[in-house]
Amino acid sequence: MSTIDLNADVGEAFGLWPMGDDEALLDVVTSANIACGMHAGDPSHMRRTCELAVAKQVTIGAHVGYRDLAGFGRRFIDMEFGNLRDDVLYQLGALDAFARAAGGAVRYVKPHGALYNALMANRDQAAAVVAAVRDFGGRLGVLGLPGSALLRAASDGGLPTFEEAFADRAYTTSGELVSRRLPGAVIHDPAVSARRCVRLVRDGVIDTVEDIDLPLRADSVCVHGDTAGAVEIAQRIKEALLESNVSIKSFVA
Amino acid sequence: MSTIDLNADVGEAFGLWPMGDDEALLDVVTSANIACGMHAGDPSHMRRTCELAVAKQVTIGAHVGYRDLAGFGRRFIDMEFGNLRDDVLYQLGALDAFARAAGGAVRYVKPHGALYNALMANRDQAAAVVAAVRDFGGRLGVLGLPGSALLRAASDGGLPTFEEAFADRAYTTSGELVSRRLPGAVIHDPAVSARRCVRLVRDGVIDTVEDIDLPLRADSVCVHGDTAGAVEIAQRIKEALLESNVSIKSFVA
Amino acid sequence: MSTIDLNADVGEAFGLWPMGDDEALLDVVTSANIACGMHAGDPSHMRRTCELAVAKQVTIGAHVGYRDLAGFGRRFIDMEFGNLRDDVLYQLGALDAFARAAGGAVRYVKPHGALYNALMANRDQAAAVVAAVRDFGGRLGVLGLPGSALLRAASDGGLPTFEEAFADRAYTTSGELVSRRLPGAVIHDPAVSARRCVRLVRDGVIDTVEDIDLPLRADSVCVHGDTAGAVEIAQRIKEALLESNVSIKSFVA
Amino acid sequence: MSTIDLNADVGEAFGLWPMGDDEALLDVVTSANIACGMHAGDPSHMRRTCELAVAKQVTIGAHVGYRDLAGFGRRFIDMEFGNLRDDVLYQLGALDAFARAAGGAVRYVKPHGALYNALMANRDQAAAVVAAVRDFGGRLGVLGLPGSALLRAASDGGLPTFEEAFADRAYTTSGELVSRRLPGAVIHDPAVSARRCVRLVRDGVIDTVEDIDLPLRADSVCVHGDTAGAVEIAQRIKEALLESNVSIKSFVA
Repeated sequence: MSTIDLNADVGEAFGLWPMGDDEALLDVVTSANIACGMHAGDPSHMRRTCELAVAKQVTIGAHVGYRDLAGFGRRFIDMEFGNLRDDVLYQLGALDAFARAAGGAVRYVKPHGALYNALMANRDQAAAVVAAVRDFGGRLGVLGLPGSALLRAASDGGLPTFEEAFADRAYTTSGELVSRRLPGAVIHDPAVSARRCVRLVRDGVIDTVEDIDLPLRADSVCVHGDTAGAVEIAQRIKEALLESNVSIKSFVA
Repeated sequence: MSTIDLNADVGEAFGLWPMGDDEALLDVVTSANIACGMHAGDPSHMRRTCELAVAKQVTIGAHVGYRDLAGFGRRFIDMEFGNLRDDVLYQLGALDAFARAAGGAVRYVKPHGALYNALMANRDQAAAVVAAVRDFGGRLGVLGLPGSALLRAASDGGLPTFEEAFADRAYTTSGELVSRRLPGAVIHDPAVSARRCVRLVRDGVIDTVEDIDLPLRADSVCVHGDTAGAVEIAQRIKEALLESNVSIKSFVA
Repeated sequence: MSTIDLNADVGEAFGLWPMGDDEALLDVVTSANIACGMHAGDPSHMRRTCELAVAKQVTIGAHVGYRDLAGFGRRFIDMEFGNLRDDVLYQLGALDAFARAAGGAVRYVKPHGALYNALMANRDQAAAVVAAVRDFGGRLGVLGLPGSALLRAASDGGLPTFEEAFADRAYTTSGELVSRRLPGAVIHDPAVSARRCVRLVRDGVIDTVEDIDLPLRADSVCVHGDTAGAVEIAQRIKEALLESNVSIKSFVA
Repeated sequence: MSTIDLNADVGEAFGLWPMGDDEALLDVVTSANIACGMHAGDPSHMRRTCELAVAKQVTIGAHVGYRDLAGFGRRFIDMEFGNLRDDVLYQLGALDAFARAAGGAVRYVKPHGALYNALMANRDQAAAVVAAVRDFGGRLGVLGLPGSALLRAASDGGLPTFEEAFADRAYTTSGELVSRRLPGAVIHDPAVSARRCVRLVRDGVIDTVEDIDLPLRADSVCVHGDTAGAVEIAQRIKEALLESNVSIKSFVA
């Protein structure tokens, strides 16, 4: 029987500003990428989100990002190795305190937004993130795109790596995500997303914009939480997977 | 033989802005109150300060403060229980990650600035700080003023408490610090500070502004680091204590 | 014929986090209290809100607050005169640049949240706000609660003052707002709010929690924008006023 | 008789953290690039620096930067046109309020740090800065590197442009600054800096790292304030210029 993990970004509120329906989303996914305060997520929302994740038996991951509340971590910042490493370690330590207070622990790391994108190719920043995870200890897993500088650096650094696919993003034949600036980059039909997800997990392929079956493996599929209808899409994907006899569980043992 | 701890605030730089001579000060004190990023101290300075403290065998304490870089944590903020508790827990977790990366650990907590002052009497905020320390786990010590709401709440919460005295601050006969707004509140002569410190540790008294010997006990004496000549004053106090056969060591076992 | 102004807080989004339906609310009110970036409102939302206000011929006011994004300006900060004066002047200058770029100008000032509440009685902070408004020049109006330290300081400082009433807040017989912590402090029925508003403007009275008619005059009535149904309530109030032959227009000439 | 302007970055303190000796530096230069709060400079320091500049008859310029206190504006941020334009306009408005309160006005704009460097070639960000200056109105001057995307955009936008040279930086034969990462990029000998400055102003040439005289013209020479001995270097340059009968005055009429 096939197995897959579903992950989503949660805890992205800040102060009085809400974002997403974390409670509903955490009923669907098995892994929660929780914001750590630098691009989103204040301490009280971090606590609440960790408590929800523990109560719903969702694995806690640190969604680390650039220090940029005004830009929601979606703008590349040309940070040096040391400062980025330390900003990431800061976020890991802070989130872990809330995870532990809730009876859990941080089990993996997934970079957020512009940092996630930068780590496709930026080896210096990838090394900084990996250095932070290693400093933190406990051999946390690292969740990222197949072929990314991040996963290479993590693997070289002796950390467990996990590969991520996107249910609602179009792929090129060379295995890259189609840029969001191009038409058709994002798949809005839940039924289509769900079908692609089932094929990915059961058959190990995803169809590309060129209509070719691309071989792809994934440990986790990302479902988004901050768009309209996000929860419904996530539920549809989950149902489709369950109906296809796919077992859904965290990639962390 | 008498024993005392010397503590100082360190790690108060932020980004490109330096503050104090931490390296020299950490050669003198046995306990380091390290800023945690909310009122001062960015992640890279937190790392560097923890590394220095571990190298010099100085005990690491979390100098937690209000979220207020522009005010350096010196302005009272009327925070609710939950938000303050969570801001403190956030800071504890973040600092501990750096302490552990350096081969140490956070061993105690001392509130900073306006939060320290508020915790003399503000029971709600004292309870919030204590709740955070308890959530963090590991029975960290709490360092504060004798008679403060903070130490009462910590004691009620089952945490080890440690009493602090100030070498360079004038006391009233009722045991309170003379307000900084009054003349004579701060003692600028290192020789006087040193003499008062020796009497405090050896004889258990401190002289007050009314020139009366006030019985006072202390586990730790605070020496300041951010004023001109601070390091020299700290060294003078340490020498005077050592010459009086006082043993200087951390209050944490 | 009676005349009244309707004001609302707008521009309270920050970065990716939205708040309220400014576009709809600006179709109802005649004065817009626009957040200036310290407690809410980033520069791009400030621009957008000023453009909307100018397009809809709504008078622009500066909704100045404490520097506290995490607390949305709802926590008292014990700021000194100089720092508060300068934080307020900073906000005035910044907002005015956007107002002018949109073809308008800042015409009045209304403090936000905890600062608004503090200025009921805190004369030092009231003096700081007034000093900033005077430094800014142009004799901006000051909008606040009748009897507040703010309006006294503004009046003493030669600034035009305008008195504000709340459609959806209960009053005591002594003319104060019932604390939000008490039951019945907030009126949720739009029809009741509308009726009270009409009586206030036409008859110069508002009914109190003790069911007594309190004489009250107001230049402007505040309608809230950040609660569910806020826009509908504002519209109901406006309709009721228009049906009672009350003219609704800005208090700024 | 030749004429030149001397400019320096000032007002770069933040809260309790000082930086540079603004008072001494403002006795030397004729143009002050004043930080506006996003990368450095809190409102109270902005006020103080404007007051000093007005008292010493130094022209006030807005030293606008990326929103990045932790990085002091020295890290490139990949901002979109609209957000950067609005962040710059925000800073212009805020600083101008303090300049006017002090009896002056903002007369020119010089980008800071990583933004300055980005504007050598980044046309989108250059257009954003110019759009903000145009929105602000009053035809402020724009101070930047000869040949930069910034000056081209400013010139295309109808703004007065002014060219800047660096007394203490080595040039390549193609007229670019030698990267700070290369040896010899920064000239530390005040006598050498002063001599180069005199040749630049009187003869219109600067010697390059290849020991060739590069023709170069400049409206203003930047002297740095945040390094050890900065004020002394600035004074030496000024004296050398005055001894060579160069008149030193602001490029703003």
